[in-house]
Amino acid sequence: MRYQLYYWPTIQGRGEFVRLALEDAGAAYADMARDSAGYKRMLNILESKSLKARPFAPPFLKAGNLLIAQTANILFYLGPRLGLAPRDEARRLWLHQLQLTITDWLVEVHDTHHPIGAGLYYEDQKPESKRRAVDFRKNRLPKFLDYFEAVLKHDSSARFSYVNLSLFQMIEGLRYAFPSTMSKAEKKHGLLVENHARVAARPRLAAYLASEKRIAFNRQGIFRRYPELDAPRR
Amino acid sequence: MRYQLYYWPTIQGRGEFVRLALEDAGAAYADMARDSAGYKRMLNILESKSLKARPFAPPFLKAGNLLIAQTANILFYLGPRLGLAPRDEARRLWLHQLQLTITDWLVEVHDTHHPIGAGLYYEDQKPESKRRAVDFRKNRLPKFLDYFEAVLKHDSSARFSYVNLSLFQMIEGLRYAFPSTMSKAEKKHGLLVENHARVAARPRLAAYLASEKRIAFNRQGIFRRYPELDAPRR
Repeated sequence: MRYQLYYWPTIQGRGEFVRLALEDAGAAYADMARDSAGYKRMLNILESKSLKARPFAPPFLKAGNLLIAQTANILFYLGPRLGLAPRDEARRLWLHQLQLTITDWLVEVHDTHHPIGAGLYYEDQKPESKRRAVDFRKNRLPKFLDYFEAVLKHDSSARFSYVNLSLFQMIEGLRYAFPSTMSKAEKKHGLLVENHARVAARPRLAAYLASEKRIAFNRQGIFRRYPELDAPRR
Repeated sequence: MRYQLYYWPTIQGRGEFVRLALEDAGAAYADMARDSAGYKRMLNILESKSLKARPFAPPFLKAGNLLIAQTANILFYLGPRLGLAPRDEARRLWLHQLQLTITDWLVEVHDTHHPIGAGLYYEDQKPESKRRAVDFRKNRLPKFLDYFEAVLKHDSSARFSYVNLSLFQMIEGLRYAFPSTMSKAEKKHGLLVENHARVAARPRLAAYLASEKRIAFNRQGIFRRYPELDAPRR
């Protein structure tokens, strides 16, 4: 099966969680919207009045006759097919539950720089962003980090899965966006740090991360570096 | 199978989407946290250091040996078992995709009164809430309503599913929280209105909605009526 992934071509964003799974598995896929013809096709799908299974937003994956949207749903579908999740129902539901919690976490990362409206510029919501970022750093981020640290502790014997890839991406993105906060927070979350290093060293993934296919973090994406939103350096 | 649902006992919140499915199907279940012993048990599960599959947050469902969290994940599991989703993979993924989009929509409803922090009071984020609510009413709400109106149009021959129940709950909640906005918006979304009426008339659901089991909307829940966040009445 050759997959077609549709996602915004200039950011990592939500699509990156799918890209990491496809790359790590060495799957055959095309990142469609990276050229202008595919980009137009993505917009046509999003705006189609006649398409029965029209997605609300990217990313979406074309797999044969299926058109699947919502990042966690795509990973749920791909997991067993890519060898990144077992076929056992209980385990699949558990991994999916973790992925949905990562989805929630990611929304909260996004909202540190867009607390008022996704359609507005960051510059139009800077004071609100500062307040939200404080709450995120002090209350929400530790809660998520503690939770997933405990998950890794209990799951230490579990088979490698797409959740390991997504947790790598969360740490990678948080390091980029909140370097000062993370340099302190990582000291108490050794298993998340270890998972990050382990994922980065996987041969296919290391090659991908070093390639031009990996889009750099930037200020259009979900993880953004605005020093005023990070903890002050001491 | 007798299910155990765990959710905050004083609000509809996310748990209500699961309650509606269980009630509509006439399933055997206990809403555990509605008495103080069950409530304590819920907190113990959330704080457990030894539980391997500890949920990040309610709602969660105990189904035999399974402990399943994340609303959409619970509905994905229950769907075929309650006769509220087919067993066919393509259709299940599509319904789940819709449910995840409803999940996203619900977060945006919540954030109209909590744009800065879920742990802060509304009273501590009123000016920010007003700005966020304007963006929600003008940009986001129409986008979601248009999307699901189109879904219902294309899906008119589809079997009744838990997504119909969840769309009922969205309209019900939005009517409570934004009566002025909705009285206008509903005129262009006849299928969503029709779906709401059809669900409300289902015998088991009508009995549930009229009973004391149905918690009233209130200012601790996700849908909240703050007139200053609604469109001005003309």
